[in-house]
Amino acid sequence: MLKYQKIASEIEMKITKLNLSQGSKLPNTKTLSQEYNVGRNTIIKALELLESRGLIYQVQGSGTFVRQKSRKGYITLLANHGYTENLSYFDLKSKVISFNMINAPKNVAANLRCTMKDKVYKVERVHFVHDQILCLEETYYKVSTIPFLNNEIVGGAIYKYIEDILNIEVGYSDKYLIVKKVDDHTSEYLQLPKDSPMLLIEEIYYTKNGDPFNFSKNYYHYEHSQFFLQS
Amino acid sequence: MLKYQKIASEIEMKITKLNLSQGSKLPNTKTLSQEYNVGRNTIIKALELLESRGLIYQVQGSGTFVRQKSRKGYITLLANHGYTENLSYFDLKSKVISFNMINAPKNVAANLRCTMKDKVYKVERVHFVHDQILCLEETYYKVSTIPFLNNEIVGGAIYKYIEDILNIEVGYSDKYLIVKKVDDHTSEYLQLPKDSPMLLIEEIYYTKNGDPFNFSKNYYHYEHSQFFLQS
Repeated sequence: MLKYQKIASEIEMKITKLNLSQGSKLPNTKTLSQEYNVGRNTIIKALELLESRGLIYQVQGSGTFVRQKSRKGYITLLANHGYTENLSYFDLKSKVISFNMINAPKNVAANLRCTMKDKVYKVERVHFVHDQILCLEETYYKVSTIPFLNNEIVGGAIYKYIEDILNIEVGYSDKYLIVKKVDDHTSEYLQLPKDSPMLLIEEIYYTKNGDPFNFSKNYYHYEHSQFFLQS
Repeated sequence: MLKYQKIASEIEMKITKLNLSQGSKLPNTKTLSQEYNVGRNTIIKALELLESRGLIYQVQGSGTFVRQKSRKGYITLLANHGYTENLSYFDLKSKVISFNMINAPKNVAANLRCTMKDKVYKVERVHFVHDQILCLEETYYKVSTIPFLNNEIVGGAIYKYIEDILNIEVGYSDKYLIVKKVDDHTSEYLQLPKDSPMLLIEEIYYTKNGDPFNFSKNYYHYEHSQFFLQS
C-alpha cells in the first residue's frame, strides 16, 4: 500500500468513527499534512482517491466535504476486492458447490486472453447474506497467474489470499450487467421459480500489470440484492 | 471545462482516432507536456482523470497504457451527463410522455433534500436505441436550482442545457440498481408482458456544491439494455 493510500484509509476510518454527516467540512490540506506528518502532495493524492471513491467531494476555493453515506443494504459496484471483502459489513456466508481445474472453456479463454489449452481453476459458490441466498458465483482463475488454490482457500476469502499471500496487486476490473430470466441451473441454486428475473454480473479482474487473471459470472437473486454506485 | 479536462478529452480523442489497442503505450508525461504545451502537473491530472474513467492504466515505473475498449452495445454506468450525452454514440431517439411542474412527492423530496411544498419539474420520456425501446425515464428537477424548462428543452438534451446555458456544473451522482418485475405502468410503456424482468436505476445528481438537483427513476427494457463499468 502506498503512503497516500494509507493516509486515505486513515481519513476514511476517521470519517466513519466520528460518524461525520453529509457536508461536514474536513480540515484543509495544510492542517491534514501536519496532522499526518506527510507532504501536502500526499494529502492531495489521498483526497483525490477518497473523492474518486465517492466518500468526499471537493469544492474549488471552499474546501473538502463529506458525502452522504449511501442507502443501507446496497452492494457497491465499484469495489475491487472480491466477494468476502466487499461484503464484510454484511453477514456473509458462502458454500462451495464445486472446485476443480479444467481447460479454459471458449468464453473464459476469450475473457482471460488465454488459449483453450490453458488451465483454469473453476469455482462455483453460493453466497448468503443473513441466511438469504444472495447469488450463485461461477468464477475462473488463470493457473498461470494463480498457481495454487485448494478447498480451504476457496471456502474463504480468495482475494485476501491472492493479495496477502500471493502478493498479487489487483489493478482494475471490467463489469458487465445483464438482466435476464433464470435458467434451469440458476433457478435451482437461487431457489427461484421458472422465468424469474435475475441479474447477471460478469466481471474480469486484472493485475496492476494489465493481466486478466479472474473471470466471474455472478447470478444475483433479484429479491435479495440491490446495488449502488457513486461517481 | 478546466485545462486538464480539456487535455484529457484531447488525449481520449487521439486514442479513439488512432484506434490504439489494449496495452499500447502512451508517450511519457514530459513528451505529452511538450506536445500539449502545458505543465507536467496538468498532464498528470489529465492522465488520472482518464485512468479513473477506465480508458488507460498506469504502471509505476513503466508508463501509461491504453485499456481495451469495452464490449460494444453496453451503456456505461459511470457517466454523469444525462441520457442524450451518454448515449451519443448510439442512435438515440426520445419521446416526451408528460412534462409539468408539481409539488415534490414524498420520495422525491427525500432524495432532493427539499420539502413537499417545493416545486419540481416532472418529465416522463421514453428512450429508443435503433428504434427499440431502451427505457422509460421518470425524472424530477428541483425548480430552486433549475428555474426554467420548457417543451423544447425536455424534448432534447436536458443536461446540455443545464451545463451550457444555465452554467451549472454537475458534480457527482448516486445510482441505485434494483431488479424487479414490470408493473402495469412500465409494462405498458416498455411493451413487455406481465411479470417480465426490468432494471430500475434510481439516480441522484448533485451540483459541484453538493446540491441534489435531479432525481430520476429509469426503467430499462431487459432485452434491449446492457451495462458496463470499469473501475
